[in-house]
Amino acid sequence: MIDVALVPAELPENHQLADQAVLVIDVLRATSTIVTALAAGATSVVPVSDPAEARKLAEALGDGIVMAGERGGLPLPGFDLGNSPLEYTSEKVQGKVVVLSTTNGTVALQRVQTAEKVGTAAFLNAAAAADWAVQALNEGLRLLLVCAGTVRRFSWEDTCLAGLLTCLIQERQEGVTCSDGAVAAVRLWKGFNDANEVFMLSRHGKRLKELGFGADLTYCARTSVINAVPELHNARLMFAERIS
Amino acid sequence: MIDVALVPAELPENHQLADQAVLVIDVLRATSTIVTALAAGATSVVPVSDPAEARKLAEALGDGIVMAGERGGLPLPGFDLGNSPLEYTSEKVQGKVVVLSTTNGTVALQRVQTAEKVGTAAFLNAAAAADWAVQALNEGLRLLLVCAGTVRRFSWEDTCLAGLLTCLIQERQEGVTCSDGAVAAVRLWKGFNDANEVFMLSRHGKRLKELGFGADLTYCARTSVINAVPELHNARLMFAERIS
Repeated sequence: MIDVALVPAELPENHQLADQAVLVIDVLRATSTIVTALAAGATSVVPVSDPAEARKLAEALGDGIVMAGERGGLPLPGFDLGNSPLEYTSEKVQGKVVVLSTTNGTVALQRVQTAEKVGTAAFLNAAAAADWAVQALNEGLRLLLVCAGTVRRFSWEDTCLAGLLTCLIQERQEGVTCSDGAVAAVRLWKGFNDANEVFMLSRHGKRLKELGFGADLTYCARTSVINAVPELHNARLMFAERIS
Repeated sequence: MIDVALVPAELPENHQLADQAVLVIDVLRATSTIVTALAAGATSVVPVSDPAEARKLAEALGDGIVMAGERGGLPLPGFDLGNSPLEYTSEKVQGKVVVLSTTNGTVALQRVQTAEKVGTAAFLNAAAAADWAVQALNEGLRLLLVCAGTVRRFSWEDTCLAGLLTCLIQERQEGVTCSDGAVAAVRLWKGFNDANEVFMLSRHGKRLKELGFGADLTYCARTSVINAVPELHNARLMFAERIS
């Protein structure tokens, strides 16, 4: 069974997800940034909900920390990096722990922390995320894709990626059933040719373009170019193969 | 501006809606039942969130009350009527106040009570609801369509009616803009030929059919056959023209 929550608030705050594998989706830009940071050599990404928590955690962790994050799409004063994935180069993050404060993605990650497994998906790692999902289904887990949305509300880009992932999972695993939300996500995704078209229609995509982040949109629309899935372990996101 | 909330939880609980007109949508079956009860001559429908509240209110109001409602699609023991709109005949409700306890519709109505105007929409009164919405836009209000959903989750039937209403409003009022949620609702609705097809795909529609409510589905799919909009005033729903 593939289920899709179009916004995190479809799940009650104390929702029990013990037998579920969850993929959190925040395409613009948290989950695109997370997978890019890890691909560039960051050892882990620690998602936090606000800048104050980020500062406190960075103090506790000491050296080797990169402070990163945004509020309303804009970088935070005094932080090393914003939430533009293009900033996350090897020179900046290789061997470092990235403490990432974001508007929507962190809220979604917190709401699903009781799940058996939590990973993150972006267009960038779509095929790997579909493989991860199929493996979870084969382990007997139910699958839930959670769209982070934009400030509680529906977002095109997250829903469309949920639709693409549902299609990719169905290609890999015959006979898997879909919830109403998953079928809706597939139908919405099939109205587009690619992620670029989705971003052009999306309110959040348009806003990022106005703010000067057009290059981010082009980058985040690249599909299945990173072959790994960030997984949540002890409140840190790491690539599965690096977890010992 | 037409905005659509695909589930009530897209709106924070204390959301301020002072400059907004809201149409609440719970096609299967609360808003279909409400408009049917009023069309059959009920003086008003009082939505309540649970059976205990319904019993308390009925005692306070005394004579001329019809107790009605459901939980999980099934009638409540000791109540006069369930939530099947076909039960709401003139013999049963003419001149009466209906106290209605439902699973999803009441939650949505409670979440929007700070709005300037609140009405309810079903396929049954779609054209009238679109007229009501256009009048609200002409009064300078913003328009919000709230899908009640099924136990917090996305539902096809509510989202598709939101899509139909958005189309009808755009036909009546050129140049009105749409939120991302409204555009998504339109795209989803355009994937169907009529409400019957929507109910056949919907999990909640299928469940009602299994429970023996097939005739309700056929009835609730009838479109624009009641030319009036229930409006919320002092916690009661009444047809606008009857409000003095």
